Amino acid sequence: MTEFDDALALSVLDGGTSSGRLGGGWRIGGAVNGGLLMALATKALGDRLAAEGAPQAHGDPVVLSAYFLSAAAKGPVEAVSEVVRMGRTLSTGEVSLFQDGPDGPVERLRALGSFGDLGAMGDTVLRSPAPPDVPSPEECLASADAPSPLRGKVPLMDRVDLRLDPRTAGWAVGSPTQEGRMRGWIRFADGRPVDALSLLFFLDALPPVAFDLGILGWAPTLEFTGHVRARPADGWLLVEASTDTVTASVMEEDARIWDSTGRLVAQSRQLAGIRLPEGAAPGSPGGTPG
Amino acid sequence: MTEFDDALALSVLDGGTSSGRLGGGWRIGGAVNGGLLMALATKALGDRLAAEGAPQAHGDPVVLSAYFLSAAAKGPVEAVSEVVRMGRTLSTGEVSLFQDGPDGPVERLRALGSFGDLGAMGDTVLRSPAPPDVPSPEECLASADAPSPLRGKVPLMDRVDLRLDPRTAGWAVGSPTQEGRMRGWIRFADGRPVDALSLLFFLDALPPVAFDLGILGWAPTLEFTGHVRARPADGWLLVEASTDTVTASVMEEDARIWDSTGRLVAQSRQLAGIRLPEGAAPGSPGGTPG
Repeated sequence: MTEFDDALALSVLDGGTSSGRLGGGWRIGGAVNGGLLMALATKALGDRLAAEGAPQAHGDPVVLSAYFLSAAAKGPVEAVSEVVRMGRTLSTGEVSLFQDGPDGPVERLRALGSFGDLGAMGDTVLRSPAPPDVPSPEECLASADAPSPLRGKVPLMDRVDLRLDPRTAGWAVGSPTQEGRMRGWIRFADGRPVDALSLLFFLDALPPVAFDLGILGWAPTLEFTGHVRARPADGWLLVEASTDTVTASVMEEDARIWDSTGRLVAQSRQLAGIRLPEGAAPGSPGGTPG
Repeated sequence: MTEFDDALALSVLDGGTSSGRLGGGWRIGGAVNGGLLMALATKALGDRLAAEGAPQAHGDPVVLSAYFLSAAAKGPVEAVSEVVRMGRTLSTGEVSLFQDGPDGPVERLRALGSFGDLGAMGDTVLRSPAPPDVPSPEECLASADAPSPLRGKVPLMDRVDLRLDPRTAGWAVGSPTQEGRMRGWIRFADGRPVDALSLLFFLDALPPVAFDLGILGWAPTLEFTGHVRARPADGWLLVEASTDTVTASVMEEDARIWDSTGRLVAQSRQLAGIRLPEGAAPGSPGGTPG
């Protein structure tokens, strides 16, 4: 069992509800990483669609739109899923994640998403952006070499092997490029192969791109939509995040992922809040979005 | 009463349900335009959030993610809305549009969306893309000058005053630029002022950007997420659509809108199907997505 598969393990309680557990190892400060929540929600929704008779070919997540409602903590979690429509090329559903609060269940995330057959949908590529030019993983800055106090506050950093392009990592030494761009190679630290589902995790696994603009506060995701374009080949993923739309309270962040063959396999856009630091560092507890 | 406000008129049936009517004038072929459906759904959701006690300041649509489930026809429509979470800076809800079918109600669209105060959220702009260089509206190609057979098939063309940049309109005379880009000025034909809600309509009002790649088939929207960044100033809107990710069956299409002061006021990304033509022109009936 890999760490990622362990994190996505779900027990079906009844048709529409399944239960899992958010591990503390996926936290950034006090909050569980949003990419892991999206992968878990997508897993629950895919299981539900299959159980309700979606075509067997509709096994791949194609698009997911998630609204983050409150910060998730480590501990038990329930996923409640619903079939919205089963079509010829896509099966669409809805899923919510809940955790117990002092006054009853609290919704963490609600999402709509569609599943299909990425093999059939992606077979003939008419147009696809080429990957950016990035030094080899060996020439990049390894997350494993980050100072251990930071890694203690961001246990998520030990779940992935991230190699940041030194040209977009100046923020880590106080010299952000101000270009609003971050690039790096990424894979699971324990060697789990990448697949379509994991792309929804990797789309939101880099540090906030606002760091490259010198905005070092926390950037809680409010809304995130990811498109998966193809099943990734095995090996390193190349992730690029960028932003060109930032106000003092919200920003947009785009991400793209290419697989080891150089094919674009996923892209996303998110609306994130900006919490300017008051002594807050990336490792401090995530604020409650909204 | 303007045409757009008339199209968005809703009568509340009970707390969560309201009824309206899709006018034939908003059709592209047999299907009602997706942008109009999103504006209608957003209007219904905003009304519902306000009725349920959302802060008065949360009057602006900030983000909407819509999944298109089946093609909408002219005629009666019902909107069913639900409050998901009322937060400090955002109020979030869900909305579905239904029309009667032979076997009961058929869901046309389901969406999640958040409302907030764009005045407060957009007041301090830290980074925003400049508008592209486009000839004046008078130097562009007016939709009002399109051949009347085409306008008869696409009544939507008479609801807007669209002026396409001639450099991105080669497809109309059989010479697409192959750049995957389309730009133009747009406003309501009847002079209705633009506002935040109407941006969700204008984000999806241009011809499919695939036309500029020589792909002249129908491009039904499967999923659409729009971000509204600011209330637009009065006057012309400048819309740019582009794509760089196209397979033989799906494509991604991005759109951005600047207002008459040159500020970016909205941006969107959609996943659209590609239906390669079999004698089908943009004016023929929209296929059922999925």
